[in-house]
Amino acid sequence: MEALSEELRRFEIESIARTGGHLASNLGTVELTLALHRVYDTSRDRIVFDVGHQCYTHKIITGRRDAFRTLRQRGGISGFPKPNEAVDDAFIAGHASASISAAIGMARARTLQNADYDVAAVLGDGALTGGLSYEGLCNTAASGEPIVIILNDNNMSISENVGGTARLLQSLRIKPGYINFKKWFRSASARTRWVYDFVHRTKERLKSWILPSNVFSDMGLYYLGPVDGHNLVQLENAIRLARELKRPVLLHVLTRKGKGCAYAEAHPDKYHGVGGFDPLTGELVPAGLGFSDRMGEYLCQLAEHDSRIVAITAAMASGTGTECFAAKFPDRFFDVGIAEGHAVTMAAAMAKQGLLPVFAVYSSFLQRSFDMLIHDVALLKLHVVLCVDRAGLVGSDGETHQGLFDISFLGAVPGMTVLCPASFAELHNMLDYALHSVAGPVAVRYPRGGEGVYTDCSMHAESVIREGTDLSIVCYGTMINEALAAAEKLAVQGISAEIIKLGIVFPNDYELCLASLLKTKRLLAAEEVCAAGCIGERILAACAVKEIHLKAVKLLNLGDGIIPHGSVQELRHDYGIDADEIVRSSAELCGRDLVVET
Amino acid sequence: MEALSEELRRFEIESIARTGGHLASNLGTVELTLALHRVYDTSRDRIVFDVGHQCYTHKIITGRRDAFRTLRQRGGISGFPKPNEAVDDAFIAGHASASISAAIGMARARTLQNADYDVAAVLGDGALTGGLSYEGLCNTAASGEPIVIILNDNNMSISENVGGTARLLQSLRIKPGYINFKKWFRSASARTRWVYDFVHRTKERLKSWILPSNVFSDMGLYYLGPVDGHNLVQLENAIRLARELKRPVLLHVLTRKGKGCAYAEAHPDKYHGVGGFDPLTGELVPAGLGFSDRMGEYLCQLAEHDSRIVAITAAMASGTGTECFAAKFPDRFFDVGIAEGHAVTMAAAMAKQGLLPVFAVYSSFLQRSFDMLIHDVALLKLHVVLCVDRAGLVGSDGETHQGLFDISFLGAVPGMTVLCPASFAELHNMLDYALHSVAGPVAVRYPRGGEGVYTDCSMHAESVIREGTDLSIVCYGTMINEALAAAEKLAVQGISAEIIKLGIVFPNDYELCLASLLKTKRLLAAEEVCAAGCIGERILAACAVKEIHLKAVKLLNLGDGIIPHGSVQELRHDYGIDADEIVRSSAELCGRDLVVET
Repeated sequence: MEALSEELRRFEIESIARTGGHLASNLGTVELTLALHRVYDTSRDRIVFDVGHQCYTHKIITGRRDAFRTLRQRGGISGFPKPNEAVDDAFIAGHASASISAAIGMARARTLQNADYDVAAVLGDGALTGGLSYEGLCNTAASGEPIVIILNDNNMSISENVGGTARLLQSLRIKPGYINFKKWFRSASARTRWVYDFVHRTKERLKSWILPSNVFSDMGLYYLGPVDGHNLVQLENAIRLARELKRPVLLHVLTRKGKGCAYAEAHPDKYHGVGGFDPLTGELVPAGLGFSDRMGEYLCQLAEHDSRIVAITAAMASGTGTECFAAKFPDRFFDVGIAEGHAVTMAAAMAKQGLLPVFAVYSSFLQRSFDMLIHDVALLKLHVVLCVDRAGLVGSDGETHQGLFDISFLGAVPGMTVLCPASFAELHNMLDYALHSVAGPVAVRYPRGGEGVYTDCSMHAESVIREGTDLSIVCYGTMINEALAAAEKLAVQGISAEIIKLGIVFPNDYELCLASLLKTKRLLAAEEVCAAGCIGERILAACAVKEIHLKAVKLLNLGDGIIPHGSVQELRHDYGIDADEIVRSSAELCGRDLVVET
Repeated sequence: MEALSEELRRFEIESIARTGGHLASNLGTVELTLALHRVYDTSRDRIVFDVGHQCYTHKIITGRRDAFRTLRQRGGISGFPKPNEAVDDAFIAGHASASISAAIGMARARTLQNADYDVAAVLGDGALTGGLSYEGLCNTAASGEPIVIILNDNNMSISENVGGTARLLQSLRIKPGYINFKKWFRSASARTRWVYDFVHRTKERLKSWILPSNVFSDMGLYYLGPVDGHNLVQLENAIRLARELKRPVLLHVLTRKGKGCAYAEAHPDKYHGVGGFDPLTGELVPAGLGFSDRMGEYLCQLAEHDSRIVAITAAMASGTGTECFAAKFPDRFFDVGIAEGHAVTMAAAMAKQGLLPVFAVYSSFLQRSFDMLIHDVALLKLHVVLCVDRAGLVGSDGETHQGLFDISFLGAVPGMTVLCPASFAELHNMLDYALHSVAGPVAVRYPRGGEGVYTDCSMHAESVIREGTDLSIVCYGTMINEALAAAEKLAVQGISAEIIKLGIVFPNDYELCLASLLKTKRLLAAEEVCAAGCIGERILAACAVKEIHLKAVKLLNLGDGIIPHGSVQELRHDYGIDADEIVRSSAELCGRDLVVET
């Protein structure tokens, strides 16, 4: 088994070096995964991983070793558990902290149906900082259901652990191992039931004298641990015991992120999610500076001159480019853990008291804050600035991480302004504008990666970027690059496209769009968002109200918003929002056949 | 002070007996509120109540005694804290569990701005069951900020406390009072700093030997209590001490819900939120059976014949009408506490394993589950049934509770079906349809209260309820009653209105609507929802695509969705979606002047 562990580690390092992916967390859970598989049969038992990016070893040993070289690539296997991929993947797991809730749901279904399978959740300590974990723990503790919650404690989530959760775990780690006594006691007393029952009560009282209680046992969970997460024998014994207890058990496992790979152990944060790297030295393939880095840089500049600005992240300082802010203004920087709901409510209160809070967050994770945006921010018209990162397609992280719903759900938040920069220059100015010229809640949304050929700076709500007569192409953000490329190709075909770029997605009365449509009578809206709540629909409604009768309409967008992994460019192509599709659809709208290029 | 407490209680009982409101929780916090006001100055110190319905005493003693007879009525004072109403109301508080997050935001603002005010949060034990509280606690514990979190522990949230939180609190309640020792120790040792420091460390070690640690101290909060929440002297002393500690303190206060009013103490659940009642006997003004009760009844009927059906509530068994289900099928009923996120994820997992989970929840509270609906339910296309109660205007609870956003945010959830019954008969059949004929996520949304004159049962996606030629009125749910009344009045005026009622709000291609519009060329959509994502806009967009050129359009809806308290009928009138407004707008669309009735 130890040899197997070593071999798996080598395989993972070499493979992830080529494909990119989550390195450090997976190296830390090799033994834990093997031990889980020695106890459970994942074809029927339900093991829920949380977060999902610690599932690589599980994927490799459940028939996906060969497919592993396609990890996170178009048509390849996902970097997260995916029930559609294999029966061994019990549940979806892209957003953190959901595993306990999912596992107790499965355990209850199992019990109600008199089915015969075991249920376990495997969650990282980072996932424990989310409120959903706590809700799941409370409900599980009270359930009495046979279920094992394995806490993979590596003393660090994506960034370092923050807040009370970390302290809680620290207090547990220093306590003596208790497991061997428990095992001996159970086997010794199992023979005579009444002895067991009598002694059990005495023992529980004794235990509360000898051992300090902890939060998990106080809740009603049976606490086991901590166990060395790299000792296969200890792990297997502990998991077996936990399963045999037939009640809600929390098994506390200590692992080391990056284990067995010097550079990943030394810098687990740097090797959390990586692109390609040199497997020997760990040297990362350099990535260009993108919107996230620029945002952090610009925010620092603005904060220099405005002491009211504070920055908030939900365990994503590195991903959102706010690390520089943290270094420069440590007193004005708040990492709240994986707690997006708390981040928004706290920001609302800060704004209420006169600060200028900026919450930098991935679009997909901001979904967790929807209620707080309405209830805590919008009802009081508070000036909270959201930097919505990874808006639009995110690429290789796939369907759980695509930022395709924000235009829809931010549109429902009363008084929300959404600005959408298409270039770094626009990001720079829009951030300033959001901070100093907008009242109420405001979001600046920008994509993963960098700018394209469009590097201009237009701060208008609407701008005619290119004039034309045959049809109006409406877009915002970096989709402008697709529109510009398409317009060039259309010109060659003799089709004259007018391009209107939205700088303010809403509120906006789309006057320039309507004026353009009055001229061209043909609308093509190209958006990197889901169909529900898309801006094309808003513009169409405005046309109907203003009695602008269109001849032809095409809304290009990402439909229901479930889009798998692949590169952003591949996905734009596959799901029909790239320049080629704009050209094809435009020709169709204009009733022209495309001349094939030679 | 004790006399004042008694007088306030009498006043509240007599006043709430007339206006309706939250009785039991406010009677429990009279002394606590008085003690808070003796220590803090709420015109500058920030006291955040959570949930808000324990703020009546606070309102009465901060200049709103006379206004109290207008409680929850149109133009009157709100039943929840409202900063727009008085500077003494520090923050908004309609949804539970947000107070700690808000308070730490304020405390941090205070510190960064070198301002001189104190911050406290007052939360009920029910609020502690929500994950947002936990996120706030973790972050507050780590902050080092001077802040006092007062846990008003009445051993009961709206229904009885459930899950691990309740057990945690129980374990705290049995511990000995520690506060006097702490006070003596501080005053004795404050004189000599080095003695203090030395002894402090020794004492902390000693304390960990003598006193079992608890979850709050493990997190890094300074735990004080428990304190008798009806002893004014103890309360005031404890709050003063907590404030003087100048660090994150959790003060644990024990209160009795309904205190000082025999019938409310005996049945705190029954007297949580009430309409009118007899102040002497407590006899409640009987309320008719509404959609909630019917839903519970129908669900029981269906569950009788389908053992896969399970019901879930987030601490709202009574409000959602699921108490009968709980009594009849205790093994299949799950009250998860104020944890809407957990409820949805758990339901998803139950569906994954073959159960038919039904989550009954208020529209406004379902906002907390937005991410879980997308990530845990929709990505796997799981068949979770939502019974969305209190959809539309809720009346006297006001802006924090209006259910006006669900059409918008449910529309963004991939594959979501939304059914909207307009009568009890439709509710009955649609619930069955949702459970047994729909794949994927599905919501049945219905309003607070009962049905109107429309009591028919149409199960079609669209139904022409009344034929006409001059304009098409589109609506769904109980708005049909406004449309029918309007059509009658319009007929008198010689205007022939066609009414199309949507049974399936989406997915729907609105074919009958479009056919009607092709005939009438005039659209009036009347919806009890916010403007963003409203169905009128969807239909307009469909018109533009299908080249149906309208002559006149009016979308009646509730704009940005911020609507204060008042009766539903008053609000429908004031915000322009009632029969009168439909008549007025229809005449306008048809270019007719209304003949004034005599």
